[in-house]
Amino acid sequence: MANHQRKRLTEVSRTLAKVALGELPAELVIRDGTLVNVYTGELLPGTDVAIAAGRIALIGDAEHTIGPQTVVRDAAGMHLVPGLLDGHMHVESTMLSVTEFAKAALAKGTTGIFMDPHEIANVFGSEGVRLMHEEGQGLPLKVFTTFPSCVPATNDLEDAGASLDVADIETGLDWEGVIGLGEVMNFPGVVYGDPKMFGEIEATVARGKAVTGHFPSDDDRMLQAYLASGVTSDHETVTREQGLHKLRMGMHLMIREGSAWHDVKEVIKVVTEDKVDTSNISLVTDDVSPQTLVDKGHLNHVVRRAIEEGVDPVTAIQMVTINVARYFRLEQDVGSIAPGKCADIVLIEDLRRMEPSTVITDGQVIYDEEQLCVDFPVYVYPDRVLNSMHVKRPLTPEDFRLASREPAASVTRVNVVGAIENSARTEKRTAELPVLHGVIQPDPAQDVIRLACIDRHHGSGQISLAFTHGFQVKTGAVASTVAHDSHNLIVMGVSEADMAFAANELIKLGGGTIVVDGGKVLAQVPLRIAGLMSDKSLPEVVREVTELDAAWKAIGCPLNAPFMTFSLIALPVIPEIRISNRGLVDVTAFKLIDVEI
Amino acid sequence: MANHQRKRLTEVSRTLAKVALGELPAELVIRDGTLVNVYTGELLPGTDVAIAAGRIALIGDAEHTIGPQTVVRDAAGMHLVPGLLDGHMHVESTMLSVTEFAKAALAKGTTGIFMDPHEIANVFGSEGVRLMHEEGQGLPLKVFTTFPSCVPATNDLEDAGASLDVADIETGLDWEGVIGLGEVMNFPGVVYGDPKMFGEIEATVARGKAVTGHFPSDDDRMLQAYLASGVTSDHETVTREQGLHKLRMGMHLMIREGSAWHDVKEVIKVVTEDKVDTSNISLVTDDVSPQTLVDKGHLNHVVRRAIEEGVDPVTAIQMVTINVARYFRLEQDVGSIAPGKCADIVLIEDLRRMEPSTVITDGQVIYDEEQLCVDFPVYVYPDRVLNSMHVKRPLTPEDFRLASREPAASVTRVNVVGAIENSARTEKRTAELPVLHGVIQPDPAQDVIRLACIDRHHGSGQISLAFTHGFQVKTGAVASTVAHDSHNLIVMGVSEADMAFAANELIKLGGGTIVVDGGKVLAQVPLRIAGLMSDKSLPEVVREVTELDAAWKAIGCPLNAPFMTFSLIALPVIPEIRISNRGLVDVTAFKLIDVEI
Repeated sequence: MANHQRKRLTEVSRTLAKVALGELPAELVIRDGTLVNVYTGELLPGTDVAIAAGRIALIGDAEHTIGPQTVVRDAAGMHLVPGLLDGHMHVESTMLSVTEFAKAALAKGTTGIFMDPHEIANVFGSEGVRLMHEEGQGLPLKVFTTFPSCVPATNDLEDAGASLDVADIETGLDWEGVIGLGEVMNFPGVVYGDPKMFGEIEATVARGKAVTGHFPSDDDRMLQAYLASGVTSDHETVTREQGLHKLRMGMHLMIREGSAWHDVKEVIKVVTEDKVDTSNISLVTDDVSPQTLVDKGHLNHVVRRAIEEGVDPVTAIQMVTINVARYFRLEQDVGSIAPGKCADIVLIEDLRRMEPSTVITDGQVIYDEEQLCVDFPVYVYPDRVLNSMHVKRPLTPEDFRLASREPAASVTRVNVVGAIENSARTEKRTAELPVLHGVIQPDPAQDVIRLACIDRHHGSGQISLAFTHGFQVKTGAVASTVAHDSHNLIVMGVSEADMAFAANELIKLGGGTIVVDGGKVLAQVPLRIAGLMSDKSLPEVVREVTELDAAWKAIGCPLNAPFMTFSLIALPVIPEIRISNRGLVDVTAFKLIDVEI
Repeated sequence: MANHQRKRLTEVSRTLAKVALGELPAELVIRDGTLVNVYTGELLPGTDVAIAAGRIALIGDAEHTIGPQTVVRDAAGMHLVPGLLDGHMHVESTMLSVTEFAKAALAKGTTGIFMDPHEIANVFGSEGVRLMHEEGQGLPLKVFTTFPSCVPATNDLEDAGASLDVADIETGLDWEGVIGLGEVMNFPGVVYGDPKMFGEIEATVARGKAVTGHFPSDDDRMLQAYLASGVTSDHETVTREQGLHKLRMGMHLMIREGSAWHDVKEVIKVVTEDKVDTSNISLVTDDVSPQTLVDKGHLNHVVRRAIEEGVDPVTAIQMVTINVARYFRLEQDVGSIAPGKCADIVLIEDLRRMEPSTVITDGQVIYDEEQLCVDFPVYVYPDRVLNSMHVKRPLTPEDFRLASREPAASVTRVNVVGAIENSARTEKRTAELPVLHGVIQPDPAQDVIRLACIDRHHGSGQISLAFTHGFQVKTGAVASTVAHDSHNLIVMGVSEADMAFAANELIKLGGGTIVVDGGKVLAQVPLRIAGLMSDKSLPEVVREVTELDAAWKAIGCPLNAPFMTFSLIALPVIPEIRISNRGLVDVTAFKLIDVEI
């Protein structure tokens, strides 16, 4: 059983001093490693680390701290890397509970995360946040929470399962381990003076906590107005020019490498080509799939990608350690291997490969010899959270038929949600579609298929219909309750019968994601926790997700991570066009628009 | 009249947003300067800065923010440098009130200081700190206070005028603008578990404030124990090796260039030769004399020195702006020129000269065309603070005669306080001195003269006597109530009659410093505020100090800044040997020792 009774520095500093002075033996000494010193940017071979009470007592030559009971571990040939810190991520994207995610992340060297549980917040509000945060506090992974700021993501364009107001945020910010305000996605609200956004930011700034941002626009004046509000970071940057400009404006730049987007290649050029000061840059994952966790890793993969693009390994490691710790004002506890810090240390032979051999948190070996070495506590979500599907009635094929304004027409021009592979953005496209018996038809030949979004929170029976391009689905249907940010039930397909079937099957599962064809389930991933996360183990989820990916291919979709791209199709805060339960949303104009032009 | 009604960011962020968007005109626009971007490390020519409500609304092209009432200032050919921040200094060392110091510092581009008023604290305790802090809050200079941690500096070796306990520190830490704990000089206390030191550190860490350090030792194990206590910085580093090691240990390295010591030349090699990451390095002044302020400048001089040693100008500027702001967690307000920050901007033509043409704080032009442009408020200290000399009775020549243990001896060997030019350290030396009629005689030929320390706080009549080497004083005497840290009355000289005369004259003045010879006052600097600071203007003090320096030379002392070196002769926390009102102190052994060996 993991015993993560973490102590504050001042509770154990006497013990640490005594160990450093040789008056008390260390509990664990790691010998003769090559320290990755994130303060100086150096590699320091022949370094020992003495650990006691979960923290680092001494680095350098620790011979004098070794007593008869001290566990001594040889690290010759190994680098000693500070535990990696993911400055912005959503655990829900992994489809895993915080506990199951922690197991995977720790094995990859991530020892701390700054999670924004805004998916569950959209379903269950503050209570959902509290549950995930609480789950995180018992783990050997350090789980810090940024309190979701934009629930629902928009006020007038969609309906989420819950909403959070300023009072909720004020309450949440005072929970121990809540470290800041989650990504402030409603940037127009901030820029144009929305009182709720201002109230949330003020509450956060007053507490000396970080207001994390989300600014996907190219509008410089809006960016500066946004920064003057007190927001201090961004992870939505996709070009080198945006990245350089944001850094120049004083914004902490979080460069993202998730499963559905790959910003490192382009944005890291601010380091490799513009050669700017890197102290205000982090690397983050934002959203990763369980398969990515297994296939590529977690934050270690992002570091590896940065190194592949030409970043010095130590600089890349700074971007996931000390830079993150400083941004969140936690440098007293995490982000480096130095006297007094939590003993969160990753042993890595080859920094370019970034594959941990051993992971230590709070002085305890968590992962070693390719397996976890501690038992994790079991966290059980309440029934209410495990039963989150509130759809008014079973769906029928008719529900997915969109009537044309001109019943007699044979063709009509429609707005289309253009999905972009590996990007969080969509493209506002148009298409000419056939009309048959007054119903607008999909046209797989043009790669334009049906899209629907169904209220699953309030049992209203509300269904909105539209069309999408880019998935190349030729047959069958896909449905999902992972549908950022409101997490209504989204369905996409060629056949309206399969769309109804997919939706109904998913309702029975209690949420998740499903691919069907010809009235048969090809694959499904049940996500019982809020319709967002599995209550199963990582290997089981990976197996299910792998089958799901195969099913996506089986119905014609060749995209990388199609599920992630699909799950963003209802997110009306990133340009250019989305579907919500209320209808088709022009994000740039921030309003609902007609499907037909 | 300066109107420094500074507003918190969130109070004015709506205004800033409107200015950025072009909805409201800016109050001031600085056009076409070369921005020193401390985030990216770049120089960006052609940059405008739009200012409103005391803060920066927009940088870049600010054409659209200019309205009919906007003051527009051309900065072509000028660099726009963020206001310089002195991360560690004692205003008392300037012999000026905070107000008079602010005038001088602002004219040199310093717009914020982190002062540790531990000199006045040693005389008047919390009340003294409160008064200086309060004086600072009304000024166009941003005055942050680190609350003095070690008053008195030692418990058993000296007697100060006041002492501060943990409860005092807790109270003071909650005053607005108190930003951390002042230099924790009692490093052995910290390392070996002194409860007072631990209580103070715990109180500071619990408030998320900075615990600033003072670690002049080479003992690595003690350093690590010290760091594990929660102390995070040091400004006592004198060698490249110490500097590199402290940086590796995660300590924020404050490289000092004061009037009496010049650490930049040696310690800056960590940057120019070891080429470490510079984000954890600041440049500070610690103690500067009023003459240095006039002759060399303030923090701008330290930056210039770093540049002279080969540091890139932008890197050097980072060390007095963003690095300091981050260390004290004030980057939302100060340390850079970016949207939302306080409009503290220094216009400098030549970065290598670092001479400001114009200084702006909170959006107001404070210094321009070689003069201050605003009136400063007048701050009056209470009578009690202006009358701080509590010596039991007038001194006589007999008071300064040290009897030998062996009255019949003709010579004796004594411990000598060896002063070192331009250094805070002293050297434990010995000398063989003549004994005449049982009294140990000074020997100017060996450069060994009399030294005394007299209680001036408690009227006890206590006088301690010893000898000092290094000042090369040949005649007369010097006395001072500036005598770190207890600020008792110290007297040094060849003639015991002149020593008594100097002491008595200084008592009449209400404290200060004085040089006499042959029963005549050669020069004097009255320091009525606590015996530490003048109530006069900067030009008057500089004139007095200049005369004083000439008087030091007249009695034979050729040292650079001899007053500063002398004033440290009673500081029993920096090795190796000192005098206190209780006697001769071996600092390394941390105990009182006999003068005769």
